Amino acid sequence: MSKKKKSALSTKQGVSQNEMANSSSISKIRQKRKVNLNADSIVARILDRDITALSRAITLIESKNTKHTELAKNIIQTCLPHANKSIRIGITGVPGVGKSTFIEALGKHLTHTGKRVAVLAIDPSSSITKGSILGDKTRMEDLVRDDKAYIRPSASGETLGGVARKTRESIILCEAAGFDVVIIETVGVGQSETVVHSMVDFFLLLKLAGAGDELQGIKRGIIEMADAIVINKADGDNLKKAKLAQVEFKRALHLYPKKESNWQPQVSLCSALNNEGVSDIWNLILNFIEITSHNGYFERKRKQQSKHWLLQTIENQLKSDFFKSPKIQDELNRQLVLIENNKTTPFVAADCLLKLIK
Amino acid sequence: MSKKKKSALSTKQGVSQNEMANSSSISKIRQKRKVNLNADSIVARILDRDITALSRAITLIESKNTKHTELAKNIIQTCLPHANKSIRIGITGVPGVGKSTFIEALGKHLTHTGKRVAVLAIDPSSSITKGSILGDKTRMEDLVRDDKAYIRPSASGETLGGVARKTRESIILCEAAGFDVVIIETVGVGQSETVVHSMVDFFLLLKLAGAGDELQGIKRGIIEMADAIVINKADGDNLKKAKLAQVEFKRALHLYPKKESNWQPQVSLCSALNNEGVSDIWNLILNFIEITSHNGYFERKRKQQSKHWLLQTIENQLKSDFFKSPKIQDELNRQLVLIENNKTTPFVAADCLLKLIK
Repeated sequence: MSKKKKSALSTKQGVSQNEMANSSSISKIRQKRKVNLNADSIVARILDRDITALSRAITLIESKNTKHTELAKNIIQTCLPHANKSIRIGITGVPGVGKSTFIEALGKHLTHTGKRVAVLAIDPSSSITKGSILGDKTRMEDLVRDDKAYIRPSASGETLGGVARKTRESIILCEAAGFDVVIIETVGVGQSETVVHSMVDFFLLLKLAGAGDELQGIKRGIIEMADAIVINKADGDNLKKAKLAQVEFKRALHLYPKKESNWQPQVSLCSALNNEGVSDIWNLILNFIEITSHNGYFERKRKQQSKHWLLQTIENQLKSDFFKSPKIQDELNRQLVLIENNKTTPFVAADCLLKLIK
Repeated sequence: MSKKKKSALSTKQGVSQNEMANSSSISKIRQKRKVNLNADSIVARILDRDITALSRAITLIESKNTKHTELAKNIIQTCLPHANKSIRIGITGVPGVGKSTFIEALGKHLTHTGKRVAVLAIDPSSSITKGSILGDKTRMEDLVRDDKAYIRPSASGETLGGVARKTRESIILCEAAGFDVVIIETVGVGQSETVVHSMVDFFLLLKLAGAGDELQGIKRGIIEMADAIVINKADGDNLKKAKLAQVEFKRALHLYPKKESNWQPQVSLCSALNNEGVSDIWNLILNFIEITSHNGYFERKRKQQSKHWLLQTIENQLKSDFFKSPKIQDELNRQLVLIENNKTTPFVAADCLLKLIK
């Protein structure tokens, strides 16, 4: 917690220094050099595994201030050659499934073996609930205090698209800061699972046994995305139910067509609280990385993901540019009334609107 | 079949008359009047329930000729006040499930009670397989010969978006031609089910019992869209299996959250071949219409669908306009190489591309 406060403080200092420089009347060239200098020095510290610098850079990514955005862009671009080297793991599961406990157990297992772990979160609901994921400071107490771990809550007050972009850029910085494993946590709100799936190498679905919960997973089509289903809280009285659920999931998974990765998704049992089954799950992930690195899928998927993000960003921007024009907004409202009254078709209305920008 | 030939012939005549008129050097005003006159006369005939005129108008919708597109637009616009009055039913199911037999049985049941039925198809694969849906002339033999029925195969040589637009416009014309029920058939290729779902009032999933087929439906997330699941071929030796599947589906459906329509999706058995269970399914659809008309969902959904199509059309057009520019294509290729070589992020690349059109 003190580390976090310190980071927040130093970020604030960084920002105010910046603003002072910008508000003075020094020449633009000098100003630019200053920005570059700052970017370079932040990057140098990130590469030196300085967590405060990493935190400050992520705050810059999240800032709505244009100067910060420019600075963040420079930092990311300079970090790029040092990125791309971690294993990126997505973890999802409904509230109550024990995500924090599981991530803490997995994280501790990794730091014990000398690995450095960063945990980021994507939680589009956090703007409403003021941060339900990783927001509670009492969560992951052990991991928070671990020098080899870095935990960052979800950016708030943003659309899913906005959070996604910021998280993906944060991954680059974490990798430049030498983290071996980057975990992206999400809760099944809206499309957040699909978004996380499109930025990780390995996608893990955390489940509980019993109470019809098995089918709830199938419902959202998440099963298809999962590289592993982990049934948590498989201990005590739950063990029998958990084993039954494991059989059921295995049966269901076998009905799906073979994945492009050539990887057969696994169903594992785990008791994160008792630290049981966690190392097996890590071995399973390593096995996945080995197989997919060998058959070329690992690299291919990362390239596909980058292309997907490029196209997605363009689409979103085209749409938002179009619809934010007041001229379009007025005409859109007019056309919607015409459609409601059966005076025009959606297609003719679309043509009318599109003509306005030509 | 002879009816179809006749319609194709008269369409050809219509086109060549048009082209002759256009190739002559008469004034543009006269030409325009001619086009309008044609639109008006076609609409008059459509409203008069003339199937040949309806077929010709749909052919105009499907044409790539700009003059035909203009003419089609006029026709649709004039038909609009007479549209919107049918019950629109989407029917999907994997090949072999007995879609044609089911549609024929349902269609005959409706025409026997005095209703007029139009059957359209959305089959994005038809451009490859040259029309797998409704393309085979031996299918729906009885319904084809029925005066109260109209069957039109899927437009071919098109993207799913293209076929979808044309089908949605064809629905308007069928409704203007006084059809009480419009059935849209599709096979589960790509996103075609989602597209059909977004243009119908009632979405029906046709299934077979046994052979793990139950889970295959869940896999694609279609179950969530279905207002009814009909297990076909529930006869003879299959009956027992069908009843078991019915129980399984009912159990699964009850786990889903309540639909906005306030309608609890039903699971019915049917033997389309033996004409068993078909009238029950129609009663079920009528029940759905009654409930959703009463609670306002029916109208609300149609309005939402129109809005969806408006936004969808705009999005697709913005994207296609953007990516078809040669300048963008060149830069896109350059940026993709940079991304592959880890020299830029997808987001910076997107910014670069977007700047080109500003």
